Amino acid sequence: MSKVVIAFDLGGTNLRLAAVTAEGEIIFRTKRDTPKSTKADEILQIIIECAGECIDFLKNRFEIKMIAAAVPATVNAKDGIVLKAPNIPCLDGFRFVEALSDVLKIRVILENDANAAALGEYWLGAAKDFESSICVTLGTGVGGGIIIDGKILRGVDGTAGEIGHICVEPFGALCGCGSNGCVEQYASAKAIVRLAGELGREFPKSYLIRGKFDISAQEIYEAGKQGDKLALEVFRQQGFYLGIALANLINVLNPEVIVIGGGAAAGWDLFVPSLRAEVNKRAYREPAERVKIFRAECGDDAGILGVARLAFRQGLE
Amino acid sequence: MSKVVIAFDLGGTNLRLAAVTAEGEIIFRTKRDTPKSTKADEILQIIIECAGECIDFLKNRFEIKMIAAAVPATVNAKDGIVLKAPNIPCLDGFRFVEALSDVLKIRVILENDANAAALGEYWLGAAKDFESSICVTLGTGVGGGIIIDGKILRGVDGTAGEIGHICVEPFGALCGCGSNGCVEQYASAKAIVRLAGELGREFPKSYLIRGKFDISAQEIYEAGKQGDKLALEVFRQQGFYLGIALANLINVLNPEVIVIGGGAAAGWDLFVPSLRAEVNKRAYREPAERVKIFRAECGDDAGILGVARLAFRQGLE
Repeated sequence: MSKVVIAFDLGGTNLRLAAVTAEGEIIFRTKRDTPKSTKADEILQIIIECAGECIDFLKNRFEIKMIAAAVPATVNAKDGIVLKAPNIPCLDGFRFVEALSDVLKIRVILENDANAAALGEYWLGAAKDFESSICVTLGTGVGGGIIIDGKILRGVDGTAGEIGHICVEPFGALCGCGSNGCVEQYASAKAIVRLAGELGREFPKSYLIRGKFDISAQEIYEAGKQGDKLALEVFRQQGFYLGIALANLINVLNPEVIVIGGGAAAGWDLFVPSLRAEVNKRAYREPAERVKIFRAECGDDAGILGVARLAFRQGLE
Repeated sequence: MSKVVIAFDLGGTNLRLAAVTAEGEIIFRTKRDTPKSTKADEILQIIIECAGECIDFLKNRFEIKMIAAAVPATVNAKDGIVLKAPNIPCLDGFRFVEALSDVLKIRVILENDANAAALGEYWLGAAKDFESSICVTLGTGVGGGIIIDGKILRGVDGTAGEIGHICVEPFGALCGCGSNGCVEQYASAKAIVRLAGELGREFPKSYLIRGKFDISAQEIYEAGKQGDKLALEVFRQQGFYLGIALANLINVLNPEVIVIGGGAAAGWDLFVPSLRAEVNKRAYREPAERVKIFRAECGDDAGILGVARLAFRQGLE
């Protein structure tokens, strides 16, 4: 029987679970809403339900090697404990691996979702064939994962890779983390909406703002494609500030490739010119010329593929 | 015969050469002015002269294991080539290892000076006993070296660790690298002097500025110790901006310790309070609480000790 890993990616909105082969093929998938729960056990129940569905599907045909979890949290991967999950705070301190393996009787591993996504892109996506890469996910927030010599850079407590909280404007917009001017405040989906609101008065002719106060990042993107000047300025700023953060990373880490994904990367064509201009201006010439900046290729599957890869590699490194 | 490494640190001003034992004891040292030359060969001659003096001293008493060079340049350590030496441009592209070993008939290794200093502090200084550390040198400019799991983080081309060019003020002071608002423009010795000049008009009572236009960083430090308000504001800003850069590094790398050295760290007591305040405000709580921020301990010997350590470890890793 060929081996598969049951991998899941627990997001703030959805729980996505899949069975992944050693070649990275997804042979089963299922999805649930993440319960808006204050109890870790309720979330655990949904995971067990999805896993059960998957196990039934695999029965007698595949050997389940491991269960691999990507969570939106800093984690102690070694002990399988969630450290801090800003968007699912009931998981803070939860002994995830123990709780899940006790019920399912299968070995479980745990990883931060942004690290997992970086590993997914490294395995099967835009960072394939590169031994050092940085993966930036522009979603509601801005997440990051760093891979050096084929391994996730975790740092001493597993909190490394918080690229979204690189400061790019010292007296800039207040961030949820307590700092001001984090790149998350300029490059996330939320930031795009906020910037459009703030810049509105400078662009009174923009059709984006005519009586609308609840525009989405997607609508701003659509407006940008039509040439709306307000929208174009929003994406220019997104690229400007993301470019500063990436230039910092290039100067500090000298990576081969930076991969940018997530829903708020939709405006790629509109923000990449100013992003690349800042990188070229602010990073050292050699590493700036060397680094490739690619759009992510694995989409929503990056995290699932990444933890599956991690599971398949366990014991090999 | 016990083994020693002949290590030298080629600075923009001085060439310092020493014989270092496997325990890190310096048993011989010599020093020259770095020639203001446009020819790599002239610099090579001075190095050979110093090395010859050292070899004579060691003769029949010690076995010379290797020659280890720290240079103010990005380097291709593997091939022993200087890539880019901003302050000694005649070395750009110079096949340093080949040229030196051809003459001295001893194996030579090459390393960037800031990386070497980080390794020196890791071996025998403030970062001892920590497997991941960042070393920041506040000199004429701001240099950096990053150690992860006991090894220098070099990046794909050997240019990693350029901490001085983290952007902390997007529209700030123009930097020699072409960017604006690099931390080097706020935390180096040069920056301290410039900030004092810029802030002068806000502090008309400061005795620092009464008819003086050529104050040194040292004089500003002395004034700060006496309570001069202009000087205190300069060091507050030095700490503020350096704190932003360090918070970025803490969020991205989650290190155990950050070591700060160099001549412009003289105002330590005056800049550390604002530095620590920014770190606590801007870095994630767990890694900010975890990271130790120490003053460097190896002084001018950090680079020599670091490359010597590298030489002793060659073949062991």
